[in-house]
Amino acid sequence: MRKPFHRRTAPGAQPGTVIIDPESPKPKIHVIAYGDDGVEENDAETVADLAKLLHRKPVTWVNVDGLGDAAVIQQLGELFGLHGLVLEDIVNVHQRSKLEEYDEYLYIVVREATFDTVLHTEQVSIILGDGFVLTVQEWPGDCFEPVRQRIRKRLGRIRNAGPDHLAYALIDSLIDSYFPVLEKYGEELERVEERLLAGVSATTIARIHRLRSELFILRKTIWPHRDTINELLRDTTNRISEETRVYLRDCYDHSIQIIDVTETCREMCSDLRDFQFAQVSVRQNEVMKVLTIVSTIFIPLSFIAGVYGMNFDPKVSPWNMPELRWWYGYPFALGVMAAMGIALLGFIWRRGWLGREPTVEQMEKKLRRQRNRRSSQVDDSLSR
Amino acid sequence: MRKPFHRRTAPGAQPGTVIIDPESPKPKIHVIAYGDDGVEENDAETVADLAKLLHRKPVTWVNVDGLGDAAVIQQLGELFGLHGLVLEDIVNVHQRSKLEEYDEYLYIVVREATFDTVLHTEQVSIILGDGFVLTVQEWPGDCFEPVRQRIRKRLGRIRNAGPDHLAYALIDSLIDSYFPVLEKYGEELERVEERLLAGVSATTIARIHRLRSELFILRKTIWPHRDTINELLRDTTNRISEETRVYLRDCYDHSIQIIDVTETCREMCSDLRDFQFAQVSVRQNEVMKVLTIVSTIFIPLSFIAGVYGMNFDPKVSPWNMPELRWWYGYPFALGVMAAMGIALLGFIWRRGWLGREPTVEQMEKKLRRQRNRRSSQVDDSLSR
Amino acid sequence: MRKPFHRRTAPGAQPGTVIIDPESPKPKIHVIAYGDDGVEENDAETVADLAKLLHRKPVTWVNVDGLGDAAVIQQLGELFGLHGLVLEDIVNVHQRSKLEEYDEYLYIVVREATFDTVLHTEQVSIILGDGFVLTVQEWPGDCFEPVRQRIRKRLGRIRNAGPDHLAYALIDSLIDSYFPVLEKYGEELERVEERLLAGVSATTIARIHRLRSELFILRKTIWPHRDTINELLRDTTNRISEETRVYLRDCYDHSIQIIDVTETCREMCSDLRDFQFAQVSVRQNEVMKVLTIVSTIFIPLSFIAGVYGMNFDPKVSPWNMPELRWWYGYPFALGVMAAMGIALLGFIWRRGWLGREPTVEQMEKKLRRQRNRRSSQVDDSLSR
Amino acid sequence: MRKPFHRRTAPGAQPGTVIIDPESPKPKIHVIAYGDDGVEENDAETVADLAKLLHRKPVTWVNVDGLGDAAVIQQLGELFGLHGLVLEDIVNVHQRSKLEEYDEYLYIVVREATFDTVLHTEQVSIILGDGFVLTVQEWPGDCFEPVRQRIRKRLGRIRNAGPDHLAYALIDSLIDSYFPVLEKYGEELERVEERLLAGVSATTIARIHRLRSELFILRKTIWPHRDTINELLRDTTNRISEETRVYLRDCYDHSIQIIDVTETCREMCSDLRDFQFAQVSVRQNEVMKVLTIVSTIFIPLSFIAGVYGMNFDPKVSPWNMPELRWWYGYPFALGVMAAMGIALLGFIWRRGWLGREPTVEQMEKKLRRQRNRRSSQVDDSLSR
Amino acid sequence: MRKPFHRRTAPGAQPGTVIIDPESPKPKIHVIAYGDDGVEENDAETVADLAKLLHRKPVTWVNVDGLGDAAVIQQLGELFGLHGLVLEDIVNVHQRSKLEEYDEYLYIVVREATFDTVLHTEQVSIILGDGFVLTVQEWPGDCFEPVRQRIRKRLGRIRNAGPDHLAYALIDSLIDSYFPVLEKYGEELERVEERLLAGVSATTIARIHRLRSELFILRKTIWPHRDTINELLRDTTNRISEETRVYLRDCYDHSIQIIDVTETCREMCSDLRDFQFAQVSVRQNEVMKVLTIVSTIFIPLSFIAGVYGMNFDPKVSPWNMPELRWWYGYPFALGVMAAMGIALLGFIWRRGWLGREPTVEQMEKKLRRQRNRRSSQVDDSLSR
Repeated sequence: MRKPFHRRTAPGAQPGTVIIDPESPKPKIHVIAYGDDGVEENDAETVADLAKLLHRKPVTWVNVDGLGDAAVIQQLGELFGLHGLVLEDIVNVHQRSKLEEYDEYLYIVVREATFDTVLHTEQVSIILGDGFVLTVQEWPGDCFEPVRQRIRKRLGRIRNAGPDHLAYALIDSLIDSYFPVLEKYGEELERVEERLLAGVSATTIARIHRLRSELFILRKTIWPHRDTINELLRDTTNRISEETRVYLRDCYDHSIQIIDVTETCREMCSDLRDFQFAQVSVRQNEVMKVLTIVSTIFIPLSFIAGVYGMNFDPKVSPWNMPELRWWYGYPFALGVMAAMGIALLGFIWRRGWLGREPTVEQMEKKLRRQRNRRSSQVDDSLSR
Repeated sequence: MRKPFHRRTAPGAQPGTVIIDPESPKPKIHVIAYGDDGVEENDAETVADLAKLLHRKPVTWVNVDGLGDAAVIQQLGELFGLHGLVLEDIVNVHQRSKLEEYDEYLYIVVREATFDTVLHTEQVSIILGDGFVLTVQEWPGDCFEPVRQRIRKRLGRIRNAGPDHLAYALIDSLIDSYFPVLEKYGEELERVEERLLAGVSATTIARIHRLRSELFILRKTIWPHRDTINELLRDTTNRISEETRVYLRDCYDHSIQIIDVTETCREMCSDLRDFQFAQVSVRQNEVMKVLTIVSTIFIPLSFIAGVYGMNFDPKVSPWNMPELRWWYGYPFALGVMAAMGIALLGFIWRRGWLGREPTVEQMEKKLRRQRNRRSSQVDDSLSR
Repeated sequence: MRKPFHRRTAPGAQPGTVIIDPESPKPKIHVIAYGDDGVEENDAETVADLAKLLHRKPVTWVNVDGLGDAAVIQQLGELFGLHGLVLEDIVNVHQRSKLEEYDEYLYIVVREATFDTVLHTEQVSIILGDGFVLTVQEWPGDCFEPVRQRIRKRLGRIRNAGPDHLAYALIDSLIDSYFPVLEKYGEELERVEERLLAGVSATTIARIHRLRSELFILRKTIWPHRDTINELLRDTTNRISEETRVYLRDCYDHSIQIIDVTETCREMCSDLRDFQFAQVSVRQNEVMKVLTIVSTIFIPLSFIAGVYGMNFDPKVSPWNMPELRWWYGYPFALGVMAAMGIALLGFIWRRGWLGREPTVEQMEKKLRRQRNRRSSQVDDSLSR
Repeated sequence: MRKPFHRRTAPGAQPGTVIIDPESPKPKIHVIAYGDDGVEENDAETVADLAKLLHRKPVTWVNVDGLGDAAVIQQLGELFGLHGLVLEDIVNVHQRSKLEEYDEYLYIVVREATFDTVLHTEQVSIILGDGFVLTVQEWPGDCFEPVRQRIRKRLGRIRNAGPDHLAYALIDSLIDSYFPVLEKYGEELERVEERLLAGVSATTIARIHRLRSELFILRKTIWPHRDTINELLRDTTNRISEETRVYLRDCYDHSIQIIDVTETCREMCSDLRDFQFAQVSVRQNEVMKVLTIVSTIFIPLSFIAGVYGMNFDPKVSPWNMPELRWWYGYPFALGVMAAMGIALLGFIWRRGWLGREPTVEQMEKKLRRQRNRRSSQVDDSLSR
Repeated sequence: MRKPFHRRTAPGAQPGTVIIDPESPKPKIHVIAYGDDGVEENDAETVADLAKLLHRKPVTWVNVDGLGDAAVIQQLGELFGLHGLVLEDIVNVHQRSKLEEYDEYLYIVVREATFDTVLHTEQVSIILGDGFVLTVQEWPGDCFEPVRQRIRKRLGRIRNAGPDHLAYALIDSLIDSYFPVLEKYGEELERVEERLLAGVSATTIARIHRLRSELFILRKTIWPHRDTINELLRDTTNRISEETRVYLRDCYDHSIQIIDVTETCREMCSDLRDFQFAQVSVRQNEVMKVLTIVSTIFIPLSFIAGVYGMNFDPKVSPWNMPELRWWYGYPFALGVMAAMGIALLGFIWRRGWLGREPTVEQMEKKLRRQRNRRSSQVDDSLSR
């Protein structure tokens, strides 16, 4: 998903050039023609076959999966009278969602989102013309199955409505496909947050980084859909009936909701990152404190031991380490060390470095003490 | 509250599908019908009972608590002639606040906020039609009790006004329910700030993180209310009387005030986070300084003690540690150590690492010295 | 100032409810009536007294200090025919600045700023009606004294102009009251910056935190004034004469200037915070360096001293520490230590950790060296 | 590329002054005249030669490479009737993309992007007049070759269309020249991310810094193109035919896509920087832990060894280090050390500082434990 | 430049009050009157002298340097019929750039920028009336000299054009005065960046802080100029001729370009700050590593040496340090130390803490290894 953007048409190439990704699957054409009176479903082997299947019912839905054959794409363009630029956009699968009005048809780009361990988005081109809807997808497999069932089983008003309602139903499924993806991200964020409470690791950091990147891309992907649907709502070509408009308004609402949730997720991700930074620094502080406590106590003590380990010869002079020959010399030295150790411990204790986290009650108490002390000091110094 | 977003209707499902959260309570219907001449209050067991209670007074307020029965919701839809999409929105309780105009009624979504240790928001759907107001809530318990009292006790002009004034009164209560919640957050922020002054702990950090997340969600929730009320104000369907508009303008004002306070709270939260970062790093600095001071003084001293602890045999050669046999060897060694210790202390003192925080007066003085010194140096070097 | 927001009216309460802060001072009423021919000044004990003082001159300015009596507020409302919502807003002293147009009067909310060690803002309500201006303030004491002098001493054109010019003069004084406050903040920021150059302390950090919070609140407070004055300028009720409009435009200009300066201050505050973070980390680096230098030199030396402090018995075996009995054993050991110490110092020197800040000249030189070296290396490696 | 902005014309100079960069190459003039009936290509030595080549075909494309001769530029201005300000803009090669409408022609500035190890942008001025297109470039070498081929080989409709289509084709090539550049940045970002996962080094940091700067400049460069093309689309001078408008809309689309990708790249860069900060601090934590573990264990042990290295004379007094003469004195001392070492290791173990990163399973487990413990504690303390 | 904002007029003062900065220089009046037929230049001692010099040529340019005399300013106001508010704005030299339309004249405020080691901005007031242009500057010295030369030497069309063209020429010089200032900042930023590559010091940090502040102020200063010129372009009073409008459009363009470059500079400054943060932390890491390596190796070794320095008496018991009397005791001890040292070095080596920065090739290799290892591990663990 995060592979660098790649546009297949070279700069300066003739507009309308159709260049195919060699790894793209061969196109498969599926036709559903329906009306109030019945449904016909067919697979078309070639575009010529397809031509025979058109115009037999009030609404014909032609679905093409796969972009791997430039000839087929161009034949489709001729059959449905599509502009060269539309064909170019269909095969350059990095389009943002958009609506383009042509005299004979509307060209709508919507992106479908799926999530399995990584975010995938797929470009779906929808062409809404007189009596037909043409959809072109990058890969087989889509979220249109419930719509097909509604057509086959005559659920709701879809069988009685025109191609505009079909186009709405398809756009609505595509938009709603973002909801389960966002739910996944929501759960993921929760899991990361809980893990952060348990401790920060390089894995968690890489995780948050990944989530942020993907949510950013998700936001960039979903954002233009709002405009697309809004333009459809305000469309002046009369291709969208008044009835369908009410439904599109609902779809518009969903797109706003999705943007909203995406931004909430991303914001949470940023919060998690800040939280993680704070965690790391608090933990580092703790490590430092242990090091400092141990060093502060034992390095001075070791020095004293070192002093009495010096080899000055007490026999040569009464000035040379007479303590070594005192009756209580050793207990005296130990006593000095103990006193020193306790003093250092006290120093550390006073700084509040010992012990784990203070409980909430202790903090409140300390806080009150500080506040009282401060209020008496501050008054005569600076302005605050 | 922070549970990942979940939409109950599947992508591609027929628009208007009503799917119920199994944990949702069963709906309870309460009816208040009133006019200038009197008030009638009833509980309706079924929607059929409800139908009989309508149209007996100028204004009928039907309140439904709980969404746990799809049949009841759909019967309500039929009784009041609601569009399928409205029913779908009523049960999908993650709507943003919005206004939808239909020919027969206005559909208004407002969210109520409550705060008990955690932020909760509840979706309230308000349908304003001819002579009736229908409100549907997720859970029993609401902030409408004062409005009911005003109806029962004939306070203010509510009994003389139409359903638009009732709708206003309900929206106003819902909007005003944010004020106490924000007050809670304000107090919470104050408490966190005081605690930060006393010391940073993992608890405080998690706290700030939580507050930031909740305030973000609060902001996202409250923001669209402004637009909803604004659209109501500019409503062209004549459902809102001129008189009620003046009151709605006040309500609009409140929504802006709430947004304002929410953003102030969130900004304060960000400031607290920055403050906490600064606190952590200053404290770490302090710990480091103690470690460095102790190590800088005692490690060199220990080395000298170590040297005189070496076992070179002074008897073998006059070059071998003759100090050990000097008359004043030991005092000499102690003297060297003392001199070294003082020198190192001086070095540390000069760096300003000893002592606690300088007082304000000392800093001002140091500052003046530095400024004088710098001004004489800088002149001939770089441009600034 | 930073006390959590508190709204006195409960959610769902009847609109127009006047609830009084018990700590608020009792209202005092002062009346100045003036025209081209003279000035009359009176204190009114009760609202009834006030009623008698109205309509005796072309312009009557009624100033009320204090909100501590609900009855007085409501009597004022009746006397001047004020809407209940206006009265509610007058006593809920957390309003943002706003303009509300009613048929009989304009209701204007402006906030006054004062600064003594902390920021205070006070709500001033101005009601501009036919032949009168009513101002209601939270506390006694205001910035209107120069305006009163201009009326009394007939300075400028105020005595010849209508109530709209008086309202302008009052708004102008209130807006201009932000200038001295901002100057205070500017000076404060300068002082903090100088202190930062001298060293970072917990006090400075808390200071910056405080300043940021207060400037944020100041910005939130001042921002809506711009819109208020702009709406006054575009007012369609003909309450504002063409002449006064020219002056209001100047006032609008001031409000923009104040917003501008506030944002500059806040930005500077953010810069100071970043600067402080950088300072802390550079200082910590310095502390670390000293620790590392001392440890790196003396820990290995101490180890050597420790080795020759071992008690292996040279008499038992010629392999056991024969150095101890060499003729030059001790000088040899000292020499090894000296050599090692110098080598370690060299290592540290090469890393550039010794010495204070390099002078600018040294850095430029080092820079040139590095650049030359790098340019020859980079060419054949990566793309940049 | 990042050399400081330099404007050649001095402040206050007469508008229209043409000042030439002395390092700029001498201008070379190339003319392609074409129509439905054929193509003529010529190089013009002087502007006088050029004048003879004009108006011989429906469309004449004059391309000038290099700005190194003020006289030539001014002669071109006279020949095509260009305003002095246009000439000034042509030679001041730091223009943002823009469209300026003059009565006789449109003046369009577009910037070409190329990337070889560093980002370069070149200003291309396009003048679209009656029957001619004049393009002026900073340097020889451009992305127009495919357009020339389309003219020569009669590909697409370019030979039948007017100068507006030629202008579109040129703008389209220039805009599309950003796609390969962005691809390069995308790849670069991927490489940096992978390197970050392997470890942070000063090189990586400088790299990210560089990328951020360049992407910022790229964004600043590309952004105004959107407005330029949009203005062309809404152009009212009838220089752009309806047919060409459809193509320009596609070009507009590309510009939006490029802005989109640029912002995605920049955002990724910011994310990488945050990721790198997190990496650095986690690594530092690891280093600190090792230091702390080693010091915490061995410094106390060394102290004990030091104590028994003291030279108190056991012969003088039974109090003086009697352990030294115990039968099991040495094993006893070793035992004390071992016990102490194990205790310290246990302390460290309990803090979780040993071992590498916990696996995901361990963290989940620890997490569950913590959650259970916390939930039982928190209930009775603070509100959350 | 960064001195806190100071407004000279007190809040509530009569509008139009002219209060003079006592340090401001006395005003000097210079008059250039010109037309197609010739130029007259004069210095006017008093405003009365000035009055005699007006209206003798088609265009009269009155330039006043210095604001130090309130009487002169007020006499100028009377002579040219200026509104009191204009006079107040002229002497309050903290105005943002703006355009104010009065019936008799246009009042334009533009700020000039100069840079000598620090940024200075100066307020220039331009009053464009019938047949005259009045400019009032804070200090002597300006960027108008080239314009004077153009008038004197009859360069371009300035001598034939009206006062609107003169006003344009002055505004243009003032706007263009930002270009050299920005160039300075660009160079400064480059120098700071190079220095950062050589090492971070407190000087560099203070430098970046300063640059950021100044660039922020520059941005705040330049931004309103865009609106001023735009309003001039759309001016409806017919004071600006169609011809001059074309030139003003160019000037507008320059203002946008300047804003653009300023924001680029500021963004670069922010990038430098981030870069510096990263540098500091990487350097700290390096320091820490050296400390940790030295401590990790020598502290354990010293401990072993310490153990064999203990004074347990081998004569008393065969358990008491029998190693001391072994034939190979000393070599054995050295061998243990060497083995331990090598093991620790190996541990450190494995962590990759030895050696300087890895070369790019090493990192790529390490990266590949890690990637392979990771890809095999990750598959069965978490979702990513």
